[in-house]
Amino acid sequence: MSRRLLAASALALAFAAAPFAASAQDEATIRQAELLRDKAMTSNVALDYVTQLTTRFGPRPAGSHSEQAAAAWAADYLKGLGFQNVHIQEFPLVGWERGQDSGSILGDNPQPLAVAALGHSPATPEGGIEAEVVRFTSLEALQAVPDGSLAGKIALVDVGQMHAMQDGSGYGPQTRIRGAGPDVAAKKGAAAFLIRSVGSDENRLPHTGTTRYVDGKVAIPGFAVSAPDADQIARLMDLGQTVRVRLSSTAHVYETHSQNVIADIPGRTRPNEVIVLGSHMDSWDLGTGAIDDGAGGAITIAAAKAIAESGQRPERTIRVILYGSEEVAQPTNTGNGGGAYAREQGGKVADHIIAGESDFGADRVYAFALPPGAQGTAFQRIVTRVLYPIGVLTSARPETEGGADVGPLAEAGVPVFGLKQDGTRYFDLHHTANDTLDKIDPAQLNQNVAAWTALVWLIANSNVEFRSAMPKPAAQ
Amino acid sequence: MSRRLLAASALALAFAAAPFAASAQDEATIRQAELLRDKAMTSNVALDYVTQLTTRFGPRPAGSHSEQAAAAWAADYLKGLGFQNVHIQEFPLVGWERGQDSGSILGDNPQPLAVAALGHSPATPEGGIEAEVVRFTSLEALQAVPDGSLAGKIALVDVGQMHAMQDGSGYGPQTRIRGAGPDVAAKKGAAAFLIRSVGSDENRLPHTGTTRYVDGKVAIPGFAVSAPDADQIARLMDLGQTVRVRLSSTAHVYETHSQNVIADIPGRTRPNEVIVLGSHMDSWDLGTGAIDDGAGGAITIAAAKAIAESGQRPERTIRVILYGSEEVAQPTNTGNGGGAYAREQGGKVADHIIAGESDFGADRVYAFALPPGAQGTAFQRIVTRVLYPIGVLTSARPETEGGADVGPLAEAGVPVFGLKQDGTRYFDLHHTANDTLDKIDPAQLNQNVAAWTALVWLIANSNVEFRSAMPKPAAQ
Repeated sequence: MSRRLLAASALALAFAAAPFAASAQDEATIRQAELLRDKAMTSNVALDYVTQLTTRFGPRPAGSHSEQAAAAWAADYLKGLGFQNVHIQEFPLVGWERGQDSGSILGDNPQPLAVAALGHSPATPEGGIEAEVVRFTSLEALQAVPDGSLAGKIALVDVGQMHAMQDGSGYGPQTRIRGAGPDVAAKKGAAAFLIRSVGSDENRLPHTGTTRYVDGKVAIPGFAVSAPDADQIARLMDLGQTVRVRLSSTAHVYETHSQNVIADIPGRTRPNEVIVLGSHMDSWDLGTGAIDDGAGGAITIAAAKAIAESGQRPERTIRVILYGSEEVAQPTNTGNGGGAYAREQGGKVADHIIAGESDFGADRVYAFALPPGAQGTAFQRIVTRVLYPIGVLTSARPETEGGADVGPLAEAGVPVFGLKQDGTRYFDLHHTANDTLDKIDPAQLNQNVAAWTALVWLIANSNVEFRSAMPKPAAQ
Repeated sequence: MSRRLLAASALALAFAAAPFAASAQDEATIRQAELLRDKAMTSNVALDYVTQLTTRFGPRPAGSHSEQAAAAWAADYLKGLGFQNVHIQEFPLVGWERGQDSGSILGDNPQPLAVAALGHSPATPEGGIEAEVVRFTSLEALQAVPDGSLAGKIALVDVGQMHAMQDGSGYGPQTRIRGAGPDVAAKKGAAAFLIRSVGSDENRLPHTGTTRYVDGKVAIPGFAVSAPDADQIARLMDLGQTVRVRLSSTAHVYETHSQNVIADIPGRTRPNEVIVLGSHMDSWDLGTGAIDDGAGGAITIAAAKAIAESGQRPERTIRVILYGSEEVAQPTNTGNGGGAYAREQGGKVADHIIAGESDFGADRVYAFALPPGAQGTAFQRIVTRVLYPIGVLTSARPETEGGADVGPLAEAGVPVFGLKQDGTRYFDLHHTANDTLDKIDPAQLNQNVAAWTALVWLIANSNVEFRSAMPKPAAQ
């Protein structure tokens, strides 16, 4: 039997079983969800948390002193809010520190370039790399040139501006280039790799992001250049000029540790059934990580707190996890916070009935998505009823991946849900110096809190078995 | 008689004389203005000029090699377009070069600050200045503290975000602080002066700008800090923290020259009656001076060119001047391009019948303003008729100042006109690294060209004596 038929059969079985019809909440639980939802709209918890986090600690690169200090502070903050079992799980990490980086167009009329080294990119030789730029409009075009043919050159891949879309779907195709680019360029002999920033804005602020280890390292220095600078390089070439640039970086890696901050609202009747609300504590070094992802912590903490202080403890346990090291982890590293948590849990992963992640900024939620087996169920209809009044529609697609932080739980079989945020302007700011508190709209932040509070309340006070309702993964 | 009464009498006399009624253009001239206006909307001249200028030369600080090379190139460009008497007028200048500047918040969790040294600011000692920040919310509050009381401190003036307004009127009050701040702070003993960027955006891109010499120098290093960084400093103080920062700059001044590029469309019947279309060639060093003020050159060049190629040379001479050194000139310097031109003209200033300046970005023109004596005249009514269809209204106030470039002509008695540009987003970009070509909307740029072409055509083919119609300046 093919994998596809297996999956289809499992899905059919899941619908046939229809375990949800009997487990829809009573009206009192639904009414309480609506009350919590509306109360969250005027709460101050989320804004207070993200304000303090980003102000006190600024940038929080994975493994840095700032990330570690922020985690310790957040643990105290969570205790102060009444969370239980608050603890910090440390794990080792190969950290990456930017140092100083810069770029410029050389020649009679030199021009500064707004560049940022990519995460885990090695340093340039002292004084930088000075070389002619060879421009490619796709990764495939770079791949197509003969090995060694770019000796002494800098390879630039510029596929044009990323499209701003509500679901952020313009991002994936371009990050593939950012990840693979340095290795491909090195094979061609290039001295450095340059990519047009993966972003939808026109600010002179480069978008950093991590690049991938191949054989345990990044082969050559890689940089992102801002969109207006990438345009400038292209125009100079259109005028028939040879563009020579200088790129300089003092980046280095170092042994350190990161950590997850874990805090519970223990369940009243079924404490061993754990709902994970995930986000990440670390940020890129250029901004202060307000939208990526201080906001995610703020939203999930505020939602759990709203439920905790509702006067009635939830039946299931709600666990907030502020993951460390989401941004720069490498496959060859000891791993990111999501992986470290899933490994540490071991067999207890089976206790996790569902997980959700908030890591797409602070703009409003426009849709919710439940695991595949919950499609078309009474539970889904209840969630639709409760979230519709705050502008949250039912997603046309079930949630199956969850995101980088709860992804390792999902891979281990934990069902995931999603509250889809409007990402239209997320990639204007993402991974740039512009990721700062002022970019958060408090009203939209609280709409997120309202959606999380209501949905998590409904999940926590139901007996829905999301796991058993899921189609089993097909045999590999 | 008071100055005020004198001025009022002069104004009354001007209206009584009503020299315009007889000099309104004939219908053929008006029809030609309308045709030129509409044709300009699809012209490529302005966009081509500003694209080449900003791409080939990038930033063009006053007195730099790039400004000089751009001037030489522009002279050739103007010759290529058919301008006559194209020449370059050099003048000496004390230039200012930024070198490297940087800032950061010190402490356990250091945070980078987006700062830029202010024009003519001296360098810091090597290694920078490390000091506690004392924050003031007005220049008056800084002025009020005892002399010497800020010894070893950095004085920050943060009056809050500049308001974005169509007429840019939020700018003036804050530049006053930028100009006077270093001197006031020095008197109080401060080691450096810091100002919240004079701008209406929330990007991590500081707005530079010049500061004023007092007694022939700028007393202490001055820096602008981006709005989000100024907010961050304020929040840290709100949390009860002492904010210590490091500010570093290697800026220096040097002897150089700048230049004006001057090019004519000679008048057919009255060549000695000169209409000046002004803008400036230099830019700040952080961006490429697309909106400030490559666009102004583009608009005025394209307008003059459109008239020149209309098949009928204008009666009066149209003179395009690309002024040098508008941005960083000091009172104690030899002066800016506007002053250098007016001085060089000497008695020939009397030949200048009117002057206009385009130096407020590339967004659309929303109003025109004529000199005081032209208010309510037939000529004004004709201009209203021709410009109204492209969205240009009649300004409620006459034009009297003109701007920094043609200001010295205005001071010497030359009437000035204004085509008022929408400045709502101008101060988002002004004097920052974000002043790049992509910020120009080609459609709005051409609406500017259309307005300039039509108005200048009407002026050039009229016998209106703007000068005689003006109220005479009151005795000083």
